[in-house]
Amino acid sequence: MNEGANLVGRAVDRERLRADLERNAEFGAIKAEEGRGRTVLVGTEANRRAREYLVERMEDAGLDVRIDAVGNLAGRWTPDSPADADSRSDTVSRSDIGPAPVAAGSHLDSVPEGGIFDGPLGVYAALEAVRAMQDAGVQPARPVDVVSFTEEEGQRFASGLLGSSVAAGERTVGEALELAADDGEGGTLTLESALDAIGFRGEGRLDASQWDAWLELHVEQSERLEAAGVPVGVVTAITGITHCEAVVRGEADHAGATPMGDRTDALAAASEFVLDVERAAREVVAAESDTAVGTVGSLDVRPNATNVVPGAVELEVDVRDVDRDAMAEIVSRARRSLARLERERGVATEFARPFDLAPTPMNDRVRGAAHRAGEAAGIETLDLHSGAAHDTMHLADVTDAGLLFAPSRDGISHNPREWTDWDDCATATRVLAGALADLAGAGETPNS
Amino acid sequence: MNEGANLVGRAVDRERLRADLERNAEFGAIKAEEGRGRTVLVGTEANRRAREYLVERMEDAGLDVRIDAVGNLAGRWTPDSPADADSRSDTVSRSDIGPAPVAAGSHLDSVPEGGIFDGPLGVYAALEAVRAMQDAGVQPARPVDVVSFTEEEGQRFASGLLGSSVAAGERTVGEALELAADDGEGGTLTLESALDAIGFRGEGRLDASQWDAWLELHVEQSERLEAAGVPVGVVTAITGITHCEAVVRGEADHAGATPMGDRTDALAAASEFVLDVERAAREVVAAESDTAVGTVGSLDVRPNATNVVPGAVELEVDVRDVDRDAMAEIVSRARRSLARLERERGVATEFARPFDLAPTPMNDRVRGAAHRAGEAAGIETLDLHSGAAHDTMHLADVTDAGLLFAPSRDGISHNPREWTDWDDCATATRVLAGALADLAGAGETPNS
Repeated sequence: MNEGANLVGRAVDRERLRADLERNAEFGAIKAEEGRGRTVLVGTEANRRAREYLVERMEDAGLDVRIDAVGNLAGRWTPDSPADADSRSDTVSRSDIGPAPVAAGSHLDSVPEGGIFDGPLGVYAALEAVRAMQDAGVQPARPVDVVSFTEEEGQRFASGLLGSSVAAGERTVGEALELAADDGEGGTLTLESALDAIGFRGEGRLDASQWDAWLELHVEQSERLEAAGVPVGVVTAITGITHCEAVVRGEADHAGATPMGDRTDALAAASEFVLDVERAAREVVAAESDTAVGTVGSLDVRPNATNVVPGAVELEVDVRDVDRDAMAEIVSRARRSLARLERERGVATEFARPFDLAPTPMNDRVRGAAHRAGEAAGIETLDLHSGAAHDTMHLADVTDAGLLFAPSRDGISHNPREWTDWDDCATATRVLAGALADLAGAGETPNS
Repeated sequence: MNEGANLVGRAVDRERLRADLERNAEFGAIKAEEGRGRTVLVGTEANRRAREYLVERMEDAGLDVRIDAVGNLAGRWTPDSPADADSRSDTVSRSDIGPAPVAAGSHLDSVPEGGIFDGPLGVYAALEAVRAMQDAGVQPARPVDVVSFTEEEGQRFASGLLGSSVAAGERTVGEALELAADDGEGGTLTLESALDAIGFRGEGRLDASQWDAWLELHVEQSERLEAAGVPVGVVTAITGITHCEAVVRGEADHAGATPMGDRTDALAAASEFVLDVERAAREVVAAESDTAVGTVGSLDVRPNATNVVPGAVELEVDVRDVDRDAMAEIVSRARRSLARLERERGVATEFARPFDLAPTPMNDRVRGAAHRAGEAAGIETLDLHSGAAHDTMHLADVTDAGLLFAPSRDGISHNPREWTDWDDCATATRVLAGALADLAGAGETPNS
């Protein structure tokens, strides 16, 4: 058994963690009929304030904070040890001097009108884990990086997992900085200018391949932990995810003067597509893979006026599963739906698939550390898969990566009603802290 | 036969009319793949420029221009006559001094990405009719008002026919000025502030009940004139129109982490509603009234993000027919659709019907004047109904009102591909000018 890990878990401070999460919840806070919501999109004032608070809290804990060129934040704790002088490298990526660090974190951005735990829990739990190691007097052999990745949710510049895609070398810094988004005033802005605007475009590239291991804590976003009465999940695999873009073009025309038989209504056709995608996912669940999901999450009508027959509709589809064949079947049926609508309704259609990630198994060594940390602290853990994408998908390509879950009340997330009890936040953080200490080589004994 | 009317028709100048319409088309012009489009919403810079140009052209023709408190524009031509001194009233509404005027016009606003004829043709044709009377040396007994009503299309402040509702006394000036719209920057603005911003909030109220008769020329927006090869339509009745607002509330949740069986997807439910409305209209057309139409023209999803199961959808429905029972049947079936979706999908729904106008027959005396003007000029006319709403619906409640149509190529409108040949514009304007001269008492002879 790892004694250091156990000491660390006990040193996790529920109130200190809660205070950070409650403070972070104020940035981009929205009025919600029920629960607590926030909208924190990359490059906004809310995002600037959330980042500045994190930097302040990392510096309070004595971490050496670096901002890379795409706005990824990393705060390094280098424990006092014989290797101390060497391991204080002066760029984030130069961890080749001294032992390779272990890292943990998540993201601070949110979906529009999202919840207060999705992302921030993982960032502040990682910081709390470091503080717990410090308080427990544990001196692991490896440095520990506390990380917040830029735009995990993919709301402005990319389809998701932006910062981690750069850290994993799947996208270059240059490609990322050129990504453009609506500026909300009829123009566009790039990630580069958005980060400049909030003072968070740094230098260099956070290089995840330099880490010895990575571990993320996140809210589960489904009901399995709650149903099982288990406080911490250890993820076995993350589902694959693909995003498709569909366009349906009809004929914009006067809603009063155009007889029903003379119309090519893009919205009526698009409505059939929405229902076809839903039906495809349901049938794949019933026949092939019960973890498959398919969603039309966004739909935009043009010109979107009451008295105009809709002329064009743009839709975005999200398809996921741990089974790649099941994903392919849903996508294939979405394409066939558009072909049918061209034949039966005379619309023109377009289809693209700009984002596609295969299912990702989690690393056995990291999962083992998590299970051991749970056992040492007397906390039950449950193996389960992740239906949501996480930055950990990218990191698993370049380092040993793991993912922990805390329970989500009623499985709700991406919604102000998203909730994880403060006790559950602290319990999951204890497992995270113990596993991190273990992976970082804290208090190893020959007979552990 | 009315000799004056015939002289006037021949004096209509096709190129002068075209020049005005082409100049007006520049205000709010948009790039279009095909055709010529414009977006002219009330209170925008494009709307200001279109209004200023009209005022300039009315003043060039010697009209006395008044702006009322809701931005309705009226330019009065008072022919030289024994009654001249008396009939030059100093407010638009004080037409009780001298003979009551006749009036003609339409509107300058457009739907988003609309065409260049819908509205402006009727305004500039009315101005051209006055210029033709002047050029022909015709001195009718009654003054003639050339009118442009505020926000016929109902894109910002009301559901449609805003300015004419005030002119007909169906809505007070105060009620109209308080109407609020999105300002495009997250706030709201009122009609009052929007008109102030462009310098077109005048005084008093244009009072349509003071007119002896009203006649509007508009593009047909369907294909009946084109199919019949007839250049001018004389409208028998305008269909009733009702607007319904529906809200469908489900549960916003993570698109990856929420199993298909655990969802309450507001967009999937709303898609069924769109198709139910379409089906209801088609079946009413087949069984009861072939002129009925039902359209879901606008649909807004919240939060409208690819990776979030839609939590709420707002829809707007447009239902029209000359048969009030047929309209009621479509609305009833839309309500039943929502009730079914509550039962079958667990969504919550809301339904409102903020706008409802009964079918409106056109006045026989005005229709007669139009037919006589066509006969006198050797121009064939066709009786037909209007499937679109027009300001004339309101005016028919307070004066003798008529509506003329010019052909729409392929029936297309509310679209940059909307087109009426310049020859057809001029031909319809000749009938308008002749009918107006007739109604205004030009060149009447005892044996006409």
